[in-house]
Amino acid sequence: MNVEEIRSVARGSKVFDLGVELFPGMPHIPLHGPFGYSMIREHGDLMYPEGACAAVDTFFCTGHTGTHIDALGHVSKDMKLHGGVDAASAQSKTGGLSKHGVETVSPIVRRGVLLDAAAHLKREALEPARPVTRADLEAAARAQGVRVEAGDVVLVRTGHIRHWPKRDFYHQKGGIPGVDLEAARWLADQGIFMLGGDNFAVEVLPAPSLPVHCHMLVERGVHLLEVTVMEELSRTKTYEFLLVCLPLKIRGGTGSPVRPVAIA
Amino acid sequence: MNVEEIRSVARGSKVFDLGVELFPGMPHIPLHGPFGYSMIREHGDLMYPEGACAAVDTFFCTGHTGTHIDALGHVSKDMKLHGGVDAASAQSKTGGLSKHGVETVSPIVRRGVLLDAAAHLKREALEPARPVTRADLEAAARAQGVRVEAGDVVLVRTGHIRHWPKRDFYHQKGGIPGVDLEAARWLADQGIFMLGGDNFAVEVLPAPSLPVHCHMLVERGVHLLEVTVMEELSRTKTYEFLLVCLPLKIRGGTGSPVRPVAIA
Amino acid sequence: MNVEEIRSVARGSKVFDLGVELFPGMPHIPLHGPFGYSMIREHGDLMYPEGACAAVDTFFCTGHTGTHIDALGHVSKDMKLHGGVDAASAQSKTGGLSKHGVETVSPIVRRGVLLDAAAHLKREALEPARPVTRADLEAAARAQGVRVEAGDVVLVRTGHIRHWPKRDFYHQKGGIPGVDLEAARWLADQGIFMLGGDNFAVEVLPAPSLPVHCHMLVERGVHLLEVTVMEELSRTKTYEFLLVCLPLKIRGGTGSPVRPVAIA
Amino acid sequence: MNVEEIRSVARGSKVFDLGVELFPGMPHIPLHGPFGYSMIREHGDLMYPEGACAAVDTFFCTGHTGTHIDALGHVSKDMKLHGGVDAASAQSKTGGLSKHGVETVSPIVRRGVLLDAAAHLKREALEPARPVTRADLEAAARAQGVRVEAGDVVLVRTGHIRHWPKRDFYHQKGGIPGVDLEAARWLADQGIFMLGGDNFAVEVLPAPSLPVHCHMLVERGVHLLEVTVMEELSRTKTYEFLLVCLPLKIRGGTGSPVRPVAIA
Repeated sequence: MNVEEIRSVARGSKVFDLGVELFPGMPHIPLHGPFGYSMIREHGDLMYPEGACAAVDTFFCTGHTGTHIDALGHVSKDMKLHGGVDAASAQSKTGGLSKHGVETVSPIVRRGVLLDAAAHLKREALEPARPVTRADLEAAARAQGVRVEAGDVVLVRTGHIRHWPKRDFYHQKGGIPGVDLEAARWLADQGIFMLGGDNFAVEVLPAPSLPVHCHMLVERGVHLLEVTVMEELSRTKTYEFLLVCLPLKIRGGTGSPVRPVAIA
Repeated sequence: MNVEEIRSVARGSKVFDLGVELFPGMPHIPLHGPFGYSMIREHGDLMYPEGACAAVDTFFCTGHTGTHIDALGHVSKDMKLHGGVDAASAQSKTGGLSKHGVETVSPIVRRGVLLDAAAHLKREALEPARPVTRADLEAAARAQGVRVEAGDVVLVRTGHIRHWPKRDFYHQKGGIPGVDLEAARWLADQGIFMLGGDNFAVEVLPAPSLPVHCHMLVERGVHLLEVTVMEELSRTKTYEFLLVCLPLKIRGGTGSPVRPVAIA
Repeated sequence: MNVEEIRSVARGSKVFDLGVELFPGMPHIPLHGPFGYSMIREHGDLMYPEGACAAVDTFFCTGHTGTHIDALGHVSKDMKLHGGVDAASAQSKTGGLSKHGVETVSPIVRRGVLLDAAAHLKREALEPARPVTRADLEAAARAQGVRVEAGDVVLVRTGHIRHWPKRDFYHQKGGIPGVDLEAARWLADQGIFMLGGDNFAVEVLPAPSLPVHCHMLVERGVHLLEVTVMEELSRTKTYEFLLVCLPLKIRGGTGSPVRPVAIA
Repeated sequence: MNVEEIRSVARGSKVFDLGVELFPGMPHIPLHGPFGYSMIREHGDLMYPEGACAAVDTFFCTGHTGTHIDALGHVSKDMKLHGGVDAASAQSKTGGLSKHGVETVSPIVRRGVLLDAAAHLKREALEPARPVTRADLEAAARAQGVRVEAGDVVLVRTGHIRHWPKRDFYHQKGGIPGVDLEAARWLADQGIFMLGGDNFAVEVLPAPSLPVHCHMLVERGVHLLEVTVMEELSRTKTYEFLLVCLPLKIRGGTGSPVRPVAIA
């Protein structure tokens, strides 16, 4: 970018915030762990000279809290990570993953494309367990006038985020709408870098064997972005944008909470 | 941005990673708290059908761990936050800050300017406790051919990051180089949005009364970005860039670990 | 106790330590969470006058880490806790259990009885999934010359602790030896206060519906003590003792790590 | 203890609970860290067959949270731990203390003696910064008709616990009453094992150089027990008892939360 482009983007573009807030009691995958928070010191607890004071807090969470990216090493198939890496020897309890940890993900600054399946199917949100198929995606892309290209981040909107942050976001009776294996395979074939969902697994649930996770993370090396907020992109029909997502470099981490943005 | 600009930035730009890695045992401000990590489940602990398995981890840290942004509410002066907000009534131990918490910071997509004080003063790193003055900054800007503008994020390089992640990053004998109050005041007068340092307090230390923190956060509403890695920007003489910094929306948080990028 | 008894117990008794060590990377139930640890400040980080210095640490864990007690509210059956309490309305994500939390457990100072099933069956450790039956317990008690009485804490030894702290403590192929439902029922009929195991669920596993947990915690109000070290009690044939177990009063907690002792 | 003594203690003794409750937002030393809590899974989140369900929680805290014991390695003087151990080489950020960690403390089952300084001085609570002197302790012991003996745990009551859990427990204007150095020295000379206070530092504050901590932990190898609740012991004039205190064996830990009891 030259200095004029920088100025133009910095001052003339619209930034969409695609991340959710993190707060005590927020919902999460029941098999994972919660978000906890406390101040260490409040204002007034420890005074510096001349009336200065600093409040400091602490929190705990998993790498898959709220809006988050899955590192490639998050999932294994037959105890193999992406690229045939042996999972058992590439992990330790206190050190995490020695291969495909989230700290190996470069800052993501890529073309982003929204495929608004819910809008295309004229639903506020897709039905529980409704698969988003390759045909759905191709039809939505056509209707929207966009093409998926190599290197893209593709966001698939099901409308499920409207349950956020209620308990049924993770517990909806009958399942969760999401992409099916064939759709994921087609997206990977286009050479995309990351696939994002506004649900918590990207893929349609129930899916006890996690076929889309296994296909994308293990077989194809395509990252997943989960609990992504796409409502304003949908409302404004913003289908192409610069997607910036900056995972924390947690050494060996299986994922990282993020706050992605779409710049248009 | 139109679709051509998006493609051009996504494919043709250089992205500088300004954040540090997070890992167990990493150094931190001694008055704050540490980073801790453990896997919850390793590959093999809980098998799904067809050989699928997901590893999950958890971590704890403060909002001021590694590279991080200070929320305006991080610091008070005479028990007042920015805008005269009463600190005592705007905080709670388990809920954090009800005003000026880090979740109120919009995604930062702004013009960034590096003022390379260390290079201008022909030092690998400035001396312990060396103040970076307004005159230093004006001279560096002139020599680099850049101007600070309203809305910018300004990064001031002292070279102190070369101590990262050694213990003396936080404990250097004799103090830490950083901006002094007059320099901070001048930058705030230019209308900048955030001031970043490659040290851990932005300001020159020792400074028991935190004058730059009080001035910027409390009096001027200017954010601080700390432990920022600027070495490659310096080496490549990249002085203007698009600065993207995406704090996690920790409700009520006094700060957030971030991984800022410079796009040029 | 009068002052002579106090002196006599304090100076003349033998104390058996029944708890395990807590350390980063220690094994745990895969569906729970890990133990994490870090120093906040090491010696030398923050000096007080005259060369004084204090090191401080922090840790995270679940209420079911290492040797621990289950609060009655840990388990529900058909969404009811012990005494017919409605589980849904007696819990909150950030506040825990409003009924039957671990803080409601009085300090446990009771007669303890070891029933050494492994020794009685002439095994170093019982076979995977070997149920300890009522007949086993009655025969062991007879052979040992002890009786279970109302108010007792009964410890049932299977020998499984020899896998601690190896991975197969929680993952042994073929299951884990432990008491079966009939044995638990008989013990509850004797009016015991708490049942301890040297395995991690007290009950024989696999047991997908947790029948012993449901029976003891929900139906009978009998606590469970898990991952209890009984090896030295067994070696010294110490079958009766004063059992002291002092759960942390974690408000609303589902359990607490403990370090029980047997005094004899 | 023979079986009759066991029965007699288990059924005929009175147990005093000397520990405080742990809860989110509870007060703590401002330079330490907070207690945080969250359920991982609530009842209903993950159902097992036949209506069984288990709720699980997690918490974080420091080793010095609420009622707690100080490991000998908690404090150094001129970078030496008890016994001349070099502090710098006996510690690591992620592993804690390799010498004098809290896991090396055997279960504490000892004669306990209450020296009720507040009652003897006819105060509900001693004045801020009021030192409890050797003369105070000797006079209280005489008046109570008790003697301190080698191996004892001595509890010194100042009445300060009445501020628990209010903010001024840790922040009382003018200081905190507690034992002074001469009193501590005298107690150590009697050969006691541990000294307990109903305040948070045992010693009178302010005391920037922590003389009692340095003397007891470093020079004499005497443990400290802090935030101990002695009100009921005082009310019932129970001056001698069996003191049982069972620190968690946190490997390398600088301290452990505990729930001590007095049995009488």
